Amino acid sequence: MDTHVTQGQAAAATARLVEPPSRVALEPDPLSHPAREEIELSAVLHALSDPMRLRIVAALAVEDKRTCKSFNLPVTKSTCTHHFRVLREAGVIRQRVEGTTRLNSLRRQDLDERFPGLLDSVLSATPGA
Amino acid sequence: MDTHVTQGQAAAATARLVEPPSRVALEPDPLSHPAREEIELSAVLHALSDPMRLRIVAALAVEDKRTCKSFNLPVTKSTCTHHFRVLREAGVIRQRVEGTTRLNSLRRQDLDERFPGLLDSVLSATPGA
Repeated sequence: MDTHVTQGQAAAATARLVEPPSRVALEPDPLSHPAREEIELSAVLHALSDPMRLRIVAALAVEDKRTCKSFNLPVTKSTCTHHFRVLREAGVIRQRVEGTTRLNSLRRQDLDERFPGLLDSVLSATPGA
Repeated sequence: MDTHVTQGQAAAATARLVEPPSRVALEPDPLSHPAREEIELSAVLHALSDPMRLRIVAALAVEDKRTCKSFNLPVTKSTCTHHFRVLREAGVIRQRVEGTTRLNSLRRQDLDERFPGLLDSVLSATPGA
């Protein structure tokens, strides 16, 4: 049996020990969020242009980290999921998986820094906010 | 010949004198604008959520009453017309026919009254505004 180990093989073995299993690394992030500097005005305005999404944002402004279910929206579960995804991908909300549910919070600080005054003016103009 | 005129006929004749010809009244207004109190937040946000329309609004904020042509947008004439219609129907701009062209102006006062701070925050966040 050849027990000779090249420098390359040794390096690869070390890398396997410190790197996470490739299975995890290859899985796409199911909850991707844009970084603050990646948040785009047109995407935020589009996300806020739906009355149902405005309602979600207005509710999150009052009480953060609510689950999707707790909003009791008059829409199907898949429509609800869609609205939350649009808000998350635009950078308006942050979603965090906790157990079998997702906790939602408004990215108020990020939005205020990127577009000063925008969220406040939208919230104060939102009926029932 | 019967020259008898009933009270109803007399009233109708008077109405014809003071009312505009029905031909005019029946023509649909090609440039309808929502009244200030009819302007809806979601429609305004949707109108502003397109980068091309944001560019138009930012330009109108600097120089009012420009014709469609003067914007030199990198889109077809019909796309340009579409963008202006979306902005007008949402209550963001006012279009006035003058000769063979349309003059556009921002409904700044109406928007500021309906949604205080919204237009300013959007304009200050718009690149090149």
